[in-house]
Amino acid sequence: MRINLVGFGVIGKGFAKTLIMKRDWLKARYGFEPSVVSISDITGTLVNPDGIDLSATLETVNRTGRIIDCPGATVMQSLDAIRGVDAELMVEVTPTNVKTGEPGLSHMLAAMDVGKHVVTSNKGPLALAYKKLRATAEKKGVQFKFESSAGGAMPLINLANEVLSGDEIISIKGILNGTTNFILTKMTKEGTDFETTLKEAQELGIAETDPSYDISGSDTASKLVILTNAILGREATYSDVSVQGITKITPEAIALAKEEGFVIKLIGEVEDGSLSVAPKLVPENHPLNVDGTLNVASFTTDLAGDVTIVGRGAGAIETNSAILSDILSIYRSGAGR
Amino acid sequence: MRINLVGFGVIGKGFAKTLIMKRDWLKARYGFEPSVVSISDITGTLVNPDGIDLSATLETVNRTGRIIDCPGATVMQSLDAIRGVDAELMVEVTPTNVKTGEPGLSHMLAAMDVGKHVVTSNKGPLALAYKKLRATAEKKGVQFKFESSAGGAMPLINLANEVLSGDEIISIKGILNGTTNFILTKMTKEGTDFETTLKEAQELGIAETDPSYDISGSDTASKLVILTNAILGREATYSDVSVQGITKITPEAIALAKEEGFVIKLIGEVEDGSLSVAPKLVPENHPLNVDGTLNVASFTTDLAGDVTIVGRGAGAIETNSAILSDILSIYRSGAGR
Repeated sequence: MRINLVGFGVIGKGFAKTLIMKRDWLKARYGFEPSVVSISDITGTLVNPDGIDLSATLETVNRTGRIIDCPGATVMQSLDAIRGVDAELMVEVTPTNVKTGEPGLSHMLAAMDVGKHVVTSNKGPLALAYKKLRATAEKKGVQFKFESSAGGAMPLINLANEVLSGDEIISIKGILNGTTNFILTKMTKEGTDFETTLKEAQELGIAETDPSYDISGSDTASKLVILTNAILGREATYSDVSVQGITKITPEAIALAKEEGFVIKLIGEVEDGSLSVAPKLVPENHPLNVDGTLNVASFTTDLAGDVTIVGRGAGAIETNSAILSDILSIYRSGAGR
Repeated sequence: MRINLVGFGVIGKGFAKTLIMKRDWLKARYGFEPSVVSISDITGTLVNPDGIDLSATLETVNRTGRIIDCPGATVMQSLDAIRGVDAELMVEVTPTNVKTGEPGLSHMLAAMDVGKHVVTSNKGPLALAYKKLRATAEKKGVQFKFESSAGGAMPLINLANEVLSGDEIISIKGILNGTTNFILTKMTKEGTDFETTLKEAQELGIAETDPSYDISGSDTASKLVILTNAILGREATYSDVSVQGITKITPEAIALAKEEGFVIKLIGEVEDGSLSVAPKLVPENHPLNVDGTLNVASFTTDLAGDVTIVGRGAGAIETNSAILSDILSIYRSGAGR
């Protein structure tokens, strides 16, 4: 299987590292020998129809930060690489833009248009234009997989749609953002206020310099839209979600909850067709009460009852666990060979 | 797809109920219209090549307890039904025997021998003769699936092998028995001793009249063997497991653990090739600390880190969630049509 890799930041470099690390294992276990034939970032594209040397490329880009500095790279733009460099599958891991979905949206539509399967971790296009992407993939007869876009290493979509295929999923509820969960956990354990705890999280590199996307609940809302559409078969967009963040949570509210045996968690939830993100009380002994940067999601189903999964919601290698399993699912289905 | 159903106790009847309940949904969602063409229990077999009326059969057997009492049933034995009644797949749900694996083992080998796919919840044959069953399925070119045999409604095997296909599973650790978890949870909350708590669990119908299979750790050990073989590709048997039950846990030990922020749980674990079942200390805030009759399992993986899943480990309908998803997986792979 030949792959166009589009985006070479933290996740894209993690993808290259993962392929290097797992090359022998993938061949031994599945007879799977993927070959990255193009890598594009905003500066240009590196092409090799026989497979790019990933170690050398990582070495250069770790040093200079730009694909264009790799020997043989040209200023070819990503869209031209997608359309012009022969491959069976595109991995799209450019930065998320929740306002326009670009450049990811155009990349995905272009790849589908030329008959390539698409695997992505890019939340923006999915939260904005899922209906169009799904319809285009169907029309062009290609597979479109995005497990890593919601929940990082927690395999939520494939768990619900493949492994729980006999169950009807009735509702979904979860903690889908590790940064806010870290802050709330720390406030609960140490009795500190929101501003102080946010600063500590920033110093630890867990919260971003501009933390608004996480603490406002927007990131959770984007992921909730993706899960709702992929698992419940809806066509929701970001604007359908009622969103409340964690900035108004006080140590007093947390202490009060604790007295009654509850913790406060930022919960994304879809139930009876309505999508919401808000701080909620969770019983201390409930499976949804997970600490630190962990993520968790519970499905309520008709046969199995509640099924809950806990895992790491972020991280370059963790995210690539989901990207790789999407690619393997396409490969093992007989497509893309 | 035509199905031979072998075993018509709690799980077998639950299978019939599930098919009735989900008939329209399965057809609408997957175009899947399974047809049960034979049902065998120890008294005989009911056959209808056009599909048995499941509601009428349930009605009779709920009244008399015997398949032979259904109109048209004969004394045909289960092995003859498996060999002689045309079908693509057998569902084997006779009672588990961990000493001999029978009659399940003979049923499975016979079905494979005549080219039928096998789906089972029967732990005995798997814990005793996995290697032989696996080899026979491969030789005969049939699928062999047994998600429901370990973890009930928690889809552990398919989660690890399908959804986490890009990850190497390094170790498995979990609470795989709801009865013992209920007893330990109650002892922890109420400070009661083991004997008293066991009696209460028996009165509630959660522990069996003869509870030894659960409280000795044997049930957990059987499930651990199944998971080890199916997920880690080993050929372990029951005798490879070091097993210790919960009968010697005292309220004092639980109180001491609690003071240090731990709970005591019966943990089945495979790590570095060694299989063990024993009471272990689990930190209170750890994802493995689930209460009551819930089950939980954690996989440690090379890419995703720890992935933990929580669900109901038993129950007639819950178990059939896993049986149905195994059947759907075979159907959707294109086999058995």
